[in-house]
Amino acid sequence: MEKSEPIIHSSLRTVEWKDDKVVMIDQTKLPNQLVFVEYNDYNQVADAIRTLVVRGAPAIGVSGAFGLALAALQSSAATKEELISDLEKAKKILFETRPTAVNLGWGLDQIMKVANNRTRVDQIKESVINEAKKMAEDDIKINKKMGQNGSTLFDNNDTIMTHCNAGALATVAYGTALGVIRATKESGKNVKVIATETRPIQQGSRLTAFELKHDGFDVSLIPDTAVGYSMANGLVNKVVVGADRIVRTGHVFNKIGTYQVATMAKQHGIPFYVAAPLSTFDLKTKAEDVIIEMRKGSEVTGIGDKKTAPDDISVINPAFDMTPPELITGIITEKGVAKPPYEESIKKLFEGT
Amino acid sequence: MEKSEPIIHSSLRTVEWKDDKVVMIDQTKLPNQLVFVEYNDYNQVADAIRTLVVRGAPAIGVSGAFGLALAALQSSAATKEELISDLEKAKKILFETRPTAVNLGWGLDQIMKVANNRTRVDQIKESVINEAKKMAEDDIKINKKMGQNGSTLFDNNDTIMTHCNAGALATVAYGTALGVIRATKESGKNVKVIATETRPIQQGSRLTAFELKHDGFDVSLIPDTAVGYSMANGLVNKVVVGADRIVRTGHVFNKIGTYQVATMAKQHGIPFYVAAPLSTFDLKTKAEDVIIEMRKGSEVTGIGDKKTAPDDISVINPAFDMTPPELITGIITEKGVAKPPYEESIKKLFEGT
Repeated sequence: MEKSEPIIHSSLRTVEWKDDKVVMIDQTKLPNQLVFVEYNDYNQVADAIRTLVVRGAPAIGVSGAFGLALAALQSSAATKEELISDLEKAKKILFETRPTAVNLGWGLDQIMKVANNRTRVDQIKESVINEAKKMAEDDIKINKKMGQNGSTLFDNNDTIMTHCNAGALATVAYGTALGVIRATKESGKNVKVIATETRPIQQGSRLTAFELKHDGFDVSLIPDTAVGYSMANGLVNKVVVGADRIVRTGHVFNKIGTYQVATMAKQHGIPFYVAAPLSTFDLKTKAEDVIIEMRKGSEVTGIGDKKTAPDDISVINPAFDMTPPELITGIITEKGVAKPPYEESIKKLFEGT
Repeated sequence: MEKSEPIIHSSLRTVEWKDDKVVMIDQTKLPNQLVFVEYNDYNQVADAIRTLVVRGAPAIGVSGAFGLALAALQSSAATKEELISDLEKAKKILFETRPTAVNLGWGLDQIMKVANNRTRVDQIKESVINEAKKMAEDDIKINKKMGQNGSTLFDNNDTIMTHCNAGALATVAYGTALGVIRATKESGKNVKVIATETRPIQQGSRLTAFELKHDGFDVSLIPDTAVGYSMANGLVNKVVVGADRIVRTGHVFNKIGTYQVATMAKQHGIPFYVAAPLSTFDLKTKAEDVIIEMRKGSEVTGIGDKKTAPDDISVINPAFDMTPPELITGIITEKGVAKPPYEESIKKLFEGT
């Protein structure tokens, strides 16, 4: 197997296969330090997923696949059966790190399918590694295509608001919502970004502000309370956010706070876009049947060791909220931009897939 | 001078004159510890204002007055001229602690007026102390009257959302917006409260959640991002907030984030009330001429020692925003509740004052 040149990315590479090792940005160190960690043992990759060195559904899916690729390299199996057995053992350990992340199971299954389809041990090892690398490249390709499709919606000198982190750091690289912003800049348009802090986990200040600043964007941070002020004072022209789940009717489930950003945008006549790959769409579930994860109160009552609320205070801490389709100007995907009415336009995206 | 019995308050007393001393809650210790500090030297009171042991415009105004009362007691002056000179010296030190707080200058001037109107040293000392005590009691009386006027707007089993801290801890006691909630409960209605965290300074989690829990209210804390979720999911029936400035047209300037809470309330048909004493109204300035204070970025880039954003990130950190009159259901004052159209109803509030 020819050793490929590392691909040059203008943006951060969250997870990468390099010289038979897995290289990741340690996101637990952000924004204070940009540290790359290198693993040659799948158990280390499992630990990394478990301890949030890497997070974001697409990034976790690819990390799991790379974990299996390491397991293949590590294996001293002489037969296909022994190697498959080694891979199954590694798969179990990798899967159990974050069992609720859909993409993780999907990524691991993809790799096992490829492994089972080959006969010789050396073939299996090579194809497993190649498949994992392909998954990583596909993630970037989808994001770049999405970015291209979205970039036409933005104008020169726009200031774009985004919420949470739908960026390189949630994917392999480039990002979804932030990928659209990157593509807009790459198309020669001058854009500025306003990142909301995104309490309680602060993905906006910790990750989005970090990765955009790292890539040389003109980015400003605001507290979540300043969304209305920024729009009322003409500081924002467009909004773009990612999505955790989009249903058939165009209802978008995304990080808590998205709904009020969308409402404020509507109030000020500011276009509000969602950027998400087709894999984010759930065409089966109805909006009213989506269960919103409630997270622990300690995320809201303090930051690090600093306690900012009284003991035993009751906390309502939903992880996501729902933005109804009437607040959404367009949904940007790798297959094109869906516009209202969404029942029709989303259906069209999936025709022929 | 007869020593008066300490008045029993169901709610926290932020600042109090007790046995010739000034007693304050040290708000820098909240919500982790409820510590009362006692001062017998006006320089200590000046330090307390400067270091935010006490904050909130009405509370600071009364604290300044109590500082002058201590200065009068401390003075060994034999003549009126000497005593006035001692008081002027103390006034200067007290005023310079937070020169932009309007109420501080007002409180100090009130006391000096009383002092200058008396002749004998012992008379001056007594009247200065009595005037400061009266100012504190007046603040509570106004809040209680406002509370009574507002309580009729709330129903049994309402869940009331509030933003920032317009509570006992911002006034001498009882509070403005939280005074209305207290009066509603005292009128026999069962109410619950949802307090927003109120980033960046977190007055909601640090102060409002603390003081309501201290007083036995059923209070829940939410991150500012969960306002829309809470309303969309039927968790809120009414909103009441305080105000920093209200202009003739009914535009309300209040803590950053108020505008989007009001917008979300409007979107969900939830009544949105503002509670503020007449001293908060500014009938001269036009809404568009009010300058909104921009605060330092470090309030947003970290909490305590914990850094949550990259170095040197640009930050937009406005202290206040403007809520337009069309989003406001009513403005609760000690003179009654103003309803739209506000130009008329606000004018009426001031007739005969």
